[in-house]
Amino acid sequence: MLDIDTVRRDFPILSRQVNGKPLVYLDSGASAQKPRIVLDTIQRAYAEEYSNVHRGLHTLSTISTEKYESTRGTIARFLGAASEDNIVMNTGTTEGINLVAYGWAMPRMQAGDEIVLSVMEHHANIVPWHFLRERQGVKLVWVEPDPDGSLLGDKVLEAVTDRTRLIAITHMSNVLGTVVDVAAISRAAREREVPVLVDGSQAAVHLPVNVEEIGCDFYAITGHKLYGPSGSGGIYIRPERMAEMRPFMGGGDMIREVHRDRVEYNDAPMRFEAGTPGIVQQIGLGAALDYMMGLGMEAIAAHERDLTAYATERLSGLNWLNVQGNAPGKGGIFSFTIEGQAHAHDISTVLDKKGIAVRAGQHCAGPLMDHLGLSATCRASFALYNNRADVDALVDGLELCHDLFS
Amino acid sequence: MLDIDTVRRDFPILSRQVNGKPLVYLDSGASAQKPRIVLDTIQRAYAEEYSNVHRGLHTLSTISTEKYESTRGTIARFLGAASEDNIVMNTGTTEGINLVAYGWAMPRMQAGDEIVLSVMEHHANIVPWHFLRERQGVKLVWVEPDPDGSLLGDKVLEAVTDRTRLIAITHMSNVLGTVVDVAAISRAAREREVPVLVDGSQAAVHLPVNVEEIGCDFYAITGHKLYGPSGSGGIYIRPERMAEMRPFMGGGDMIREVHRDRVEYNDAPMRFEAGTPGIVQQIGLGAALDYMMGLGMEAIAAHERDLTAYATERLSGLNWLNVQGNAPGKGGIFSFTIEGQAHAHDISTVLDKKGIAVRAGQHCAGPLMDHLGLSATCRASFALYNNRADVDALVDGLELCHDLFS
Repeated sequence: MLDIDTVRRDFPILSRQVNGKPLVYLDSGASAQKPRIVLDTIQRAYAEEYSNVHRGLHTLSTISTEKYESTRGTIARFLGAASEDNIVMNTGTTEGINLVAYGWAMPRMQAGDEIVLSVMEHHANIVPWHFLRERQGVKLVWVEPDPDGSLLGDKVLEAVTDRTRLIAITHMSNVLGTVVDVAAISRAAREREVPVLVDGSQAAVHLPVNVEEIGCDFYAITGHKLYGPSGSGGIYIRPERMAEMRPFMGGGDMIREVHRDRVEYNDAPMRFEAGTPGIVQQIGLGAALDYMMGLGMEAIAAHERDLTAYATERLSGLNWLNVQGNAPGKGGIFSFTIEGQAHAHDISTVLDKKGIAVRAGQHCAGPLMDHLGLSATCRASFALYNNRADVDALVDGLELCHDLFS
Repeated sequence: MLDIDTVRRDFPILSRQVNGKPLVYLDSGASAQKPRIVLDTIQRAYAEEYSNVHRGLHTLSTISTEKYESTRGTIARFLGAASEDNIVMNTGTTEGINLVAYGWAMPRMQAGDEIVLSVMEHHANIVPWHFLRERQGVKLVWVEPDPDGSLLGDKVLEAVTDRTRLIAITHMSNVLGTVVDVAAISRAAREREVPVLVDGSQAAVHLPVNVEEIGCDFYAITGHKLYGPSGSGGIYIRPERMAEMRPFMGGGDMIREVHRDRVEYNDAPMRFEAGTPGIVQQIGLGAALDYMMGLGMEAIAAHERDLTAYATERLSGLNWLNVQGNAPGKGGIFSFTIEGQAHAHDISTVLDKKGIAVRAGQHCAGPLMDHLGLSATCRASFALYNNRADVDALVDGLELCHDLFS
């Protein structure tokens, strides 16, 4: 298990107060805080070792390039990819999924082709597919979770037809905390020759991930949720799919030669990385993933399971609280509403007065909100640095909200 | 004039040594070093004020959002834009120009339509247009600079036909240092209803820029060259053009509502900013631009003019040195080759032994290299923190190269 007090000291921001109270940060599902090692890595990269990458021969450029490129290997290790050549580095899941939409799906999908996705996808894994619907007549086929928030693989597979060209599915819902058995889905989909894209934005934060065991074609992650810098990220792409992709963004680095009348593109994965990248962000992401792997993904998962169980127990004691999603094995994400007058935004505001940061709104999950018949919820999302005192503070805050608004 | 000694102390990396010699950083054209205020801003943003933006109501989210959004106004001031609503924030020029290519040009250009661009464009302002050539038959029309590296506006305008749909042109060549009169080009192009995209990656670092006076339709900048964080940037887009654009990347933030069967997009400029942005990078970019404006763009330009004149004088004394480009008013960018055996990569390596960082290669300008009949050059590029001692060190280093390889 994690030594949570030691872990908490690694995160400078956790020692600050908000509105005169110690910060209780329960908005990690939106973006996680950063450990000192990430901040120090960023600082050192800029203050001592900075230069552009790939194109220089001088000392600073060599250092920057080595450190930047080493993150590719770190991401590969973190995701259990067979090779770092399977990793395209980018600014996060949104860019990763857009790369797949523009680079792989757009040139090969025809009107009437189908993409299967769940109604609990994040907008990042919806809007790029809506583009295909709007622009080339691709059909979106939606799968609904069960009433408890579970999404069974069989249900996803039942939606597959001979027009299905892609299954695009989250590994963990950012609203319900539901963990989806993407390995079972990928296995069955492969037999039917349907590629699977997994949105790993939430899952990779909380669970050990191994893309080879999952067997998916694409697995997208985002650095800022993984305790890394904003604007960092990567996507695993199975070599067969990578070979099918055309370039997405054009510019430096992704080319080998440029002439007036022709372009020769670089080898993958660099073919899909245009222009000066987020050099220092990616170096910082490497530090963040090393930090997580240093703690141990199993240890992080165990800590969060314990915390989730405790939170579930405490929150279930509030009989006026409606928690959305209680699928078996769910992650530490609790979306909720309070019976009566308390709007999600009011709850968030009251909690903030107590130093507690939660999110209120649609959580970038419009179709799920439609499905739940809700306009907004509050969401408390846990991370490796949260502890039982944070849960207790949340419960106290919610009781105050209930008193105020009932 | 700048107090250059004080300015140099603002940049922590300039006090380091490389190969036992004080660093002489002459690779700012590839990426600039960062002042302490940018590093401190990044540190504070992560250690004290970090959260995701736009979607939260809690204190940290409000602080992050205000600081992140304030950079939009800073970019607008820096570029002289009429409104911050004319600024799309992004990861730099490459993304900015790809946004224009995918969001504006692709849906409206037909086979046979023409884009006028100069052979001295950077790959970031070439490859996105090659995509249009490869994918939809758009014709690229190339304009060559004069032998001294000058590129006269009239020559660009002579290439315009009734099939011209865009002029895409650099404001300052990253290889020759040539400054292009983009205001004259924009004025004449407007009369012929041809939009103008200006690649401001280099120019905005060295010259005061006012997009309203220039009268262009698009003006792209990149933060990492502007003393800001890697992965930061923005693009000015004239409102009429912004209204014509369709979304580029899909995800959170760029939507108002997402349902199973439809999407309602957000208002511009947010319609063109998908997903969690580079929050801290953009906050850092704001600090960098404030730093530049605090020194004064006229003062920076005057210092660099002085330094460029000095470098021109010193380098012209080396009669075995071929400098590419000596257009009147050129910026502080010197690309060169040495007569005889010295390959650009060898020169770079020797200079590095003396602590001098220059770039060797094609400088992301393949068509210009073809035009010049060169496979590679060395490039020394100056920034606001360089001084005459840096020029002297370069000249000494070049004399050593000449001795070694002649």
